[in-house]
Amino acid sequence: MQVEEARKGRATPEMEAVARDEGLPLKFVLRGVARGRIVILSNPKRKSRVFKGIGEGLRVKINANVGSSPDYVRVREEVRKARIAEEYGADTVMDLSIGGDLNRIRRRIIDATRIPIGTVPIYQAGIEAAKKRGSIVDMDSDDIFNTIRRHAEDGVDFVTVHCGVTRGVVEELRGVKRLLGVVSRGGAFLAAWIIKTGRENPLYEEFDYLLEIAREYDLTLSLGDGMRPGAIGDASDILQFRELFELGKLVKRAREKAVQVMVEGPGHLPLDQVEWNVKIEKTVCDGAPFYVLGPIVTDIAPGYDHIVGAIGGAVAALAGADFLCYVTPSEHLCLPSPDDVREGVIAARIAAHVADLAKGVDRKRDIEMGEARGNLNWNKQFELALYPKRARELRRKRPPSIDLRTCSMCSKLCAIKFLAEFLRGET
Amino acid sequence: MQVEEARKGRATPEMEAVARDEGLPLKFVLRGVARGRIVILSNPKRKSRVFKGIGEGLRVKINANVGSSPDYVRVREEVRKARIAEEYGADTVMDLSIGGDLNRIRRRIIDATRIPIGTVPIYQAGIEAAKKRGSIVDMDSDDIFNTIRRHAEDGVDFVTVHCGVTRGVVEELRGVKRLLGVVSRGGAFLAAWIIKTGRENPLYEEFDYLLEIAREYDLTLSLGDGMRPGAIGDASDILQFRELFELGKLVKRAREKAVQVMVEGPGHLPLDQVEWNVKIEKTVCDGAPFYVLGPIVTDIAPGYDHIVGAIGGAVAALAGADFLCYVTPSEHLCLPSPDDVREGVIAARIAAHVADLAKGVDRKRDIEMGEARGNLNWNKQFELALYPKRARELRRKRPPSIDLRTCSMCSKLCAIKFLAEFLRGET
Repeated sequence: MQVEEARKGRATPEMEAVARDEGLPLKFVLRGVARGRIVILSNPKRKSRVFKGIGEGLRVKINANVGSSPDYVRVREEVRKARIAEEYGADTVMDLSIGGDLNRIRRRIIDATRIPIGTVPIYQAGIEAAKKRGSIVDMDSDDIFNTIRRHAEDGVDFVTVHCGVTRGVVEELRGVKRLLGVVSRGGAFLAAWIIKTGRENPLYEEFDYLLEIAREYDLTLSLGDGMRPGAIGDASDILQFRELFELGKLVKRAREKAVQVMVEGPGHLPLDQVEWNVKIEKTVCDGAPFYVLGPIVTDIAPGYDHIVGAIGGAVAALAGADFLCYVTPSEHLCLPSPDDVREGVIAARIAAHVADLAKGVDRKRDIEMGEARGNLNWNKQFELALYPKRARELRRKRPPSIDLRTCSMCSKLCAIKFLAEFLRGET
Repeated sequence: MQVEEARKGRATPEMEAVARDEGLPLKFVLRGVARGRIVILSNPKRKSRVFKGIGEGLRVKINANVGSSPDYVRVREEVRKARIAEEYGADTVMDLSIGGDLNRIRRRIIDATRIPIGTVPIYQAGIEAAKKRGSIVDMDSDDIFNTIRRHAEDGVDFVTVHCGVTRGVVEELRGVKRLLGVVSRGGAFLAAWIIKTGRENPLYEEFDYLLEIAREYDLTLSLGDGMRPGAIGDASDILQFRELFELGKLVKRAREKAVQVMVEGPGHLPLDQVEWNVKIEKTVCDGAPFYVLGPIVTDIAPGYDHIVGAIGGAVAALAGADFLCYVTPSEHLCLPSPDDVREGVIAARIAAHVADLAKGVDRKRDIEMGEARGNLNWNKQFELALYPKRARELRRKRPPSIDLRTCSMCSKLCAIKFLAEFLRGET
């Protein structure tokens, strides 16, 4: 258990790995884990793997969602997506499969990757209940907890649990006018279940039991935002914050039991609301790592939501968000293709780095790139590039012809070359 | 003359067109033009055309750079790029050609488009001087002003003039340590010229003459930032601000002569520096429209600089920047292709809209998109999309198969559909 060890002042191999990876003192990581400001995704059931830390003072991490849908059950393609995500720099992958043999897909993805894997067990619980008993809302509390345990047993490192979709929140939902009621699938399942049964959300009511399971596997809980806004017009409404305040209380309870916990956040937000949304979470949840989806800062660019998400993500991360869920070009349109996954990861990776650079956490490589450009050292520029292959390809397509040290944009009139040569008396 | 008319309280057809286009009261536009907070790009020499206003309270505008280089002189391709830029939503195009028959390319681009056109006449002045007399630094003050006049005569609406590259600034350049000395081509030409001749920059020394030419054609002056940082490591240094303070004084002088003027800004800046860079310009230049290049908020993503520029641009525009110069995927690598121009315009268009939405200037379409999504009304969603063709294509590639009202991401488990049906008692 990371938290218990940290509180005793004992470093684990996981903490050591994270400290090394981040280039930070071990003490810093240890203290962050002890206080719950840092989580380390590290279910001991997982075999071959890398550890990732998420939270205050660490580099911003990014997640890529993959997974089948009832319309597209292609196991090999989902595994390929997970591998592409890892290759292009995703720190974690979430398997959100909802079509086909869910256990098989999950296990295949776990086997095919080395980065931490997250899931949303309520999907499987609901889908299996529908198969056995006719409807998603026929699931019971055992279905939910047994599925969580099954995922943990398989080596899943973190699970989204919509503990804040309480009866009180759902009651309020009926009275609130929203463009898009509930866009969280897990949130919708639970809201329907609560309405149907009239009972309290098991993930809330039996939160202590959930914490027991989490302790058993050192499973990190990602408290889901079932009431997140699904449209710019719904951003930052009372429901969103009602749920967040519940999550803040649950963070405290999780920490009391030494369970690692992070909090999920929006969603669709206009850009001016991003910074203070992050600050509110950090305040209400006492600095628990914040995991945002996007944020999507405009609704009218379907087909380019990876760019929209990169804008929102960079601003969120600069404000303190620790973990960015990528958005692909297919968001709001269809299940992403492997190419979409790649483009989504790249955009999120750039957003995360932009924030790390601005926070001074990761500055060296940019400085070196400036030097390499000043020296017109192209090989060095490619080495330093986040995605060297693409940079090389573009330059190769339109190479310089007159002066090979320059590029074809400015050619012999390259400002860098021109002034340097002039100052040396060559021009 | 827009400014003189505005100061007399007389509305011009150009002001009326801008007020209509922006959905703003004519008085607002008139007052903005009178105070120099708004410029209207509108050289009367230009024939078929649309007018564009840039500045305080208006929608954020975007510019696309096109133009030949000595390595690639393809007139038809440059014309095509300008047309693509207009088609995908660029508000202006700048012809930055430096290869081939510069007069011919410029005139072809002007004829092929209806949006305002900008140029950087110092390029042509330097290149022609090199041809006639051996070197760029052999140009004289007449070469510069005659070229500006020739461009204005052709119908160019705005010109970048690096008036702030003064002898004093250049002296300081020699003492300052920078990764990338001067990356502005015009700035490099003039710095070299000053060093060679020991004389003052004609665009500064004879600024009054420049204002006379500008008055003659109602040519908007875009005060160039010849000392802009070209690398993250050079951001916000003394040179950049030295020049900006000079530009602030020149804005005042231009306004005294009723000449329309805007100010250009960085460039390469870490994301945390973007907002205050905008605020400084707005303060020092008394609210003159601010035209930023990007900003580029990391140096290590060549091949994806359109995404990097969209992040910087959205944040700059939200902070008050009025005019975003696009960045293409080929930036720092090669001359952009027509495809790169398209991708660059799209990314900048999204950034501009993200800021307009956050400022409340342009909110309606996003709200309607939320409604259309809530109703699973796909045709309406495509209608409202900034780029419907791409959105349709993506959906068509992976269409839903089980329930055609949903998309293939969630299929029959669509949260929106699920909860709505459940609440109606259908599930």
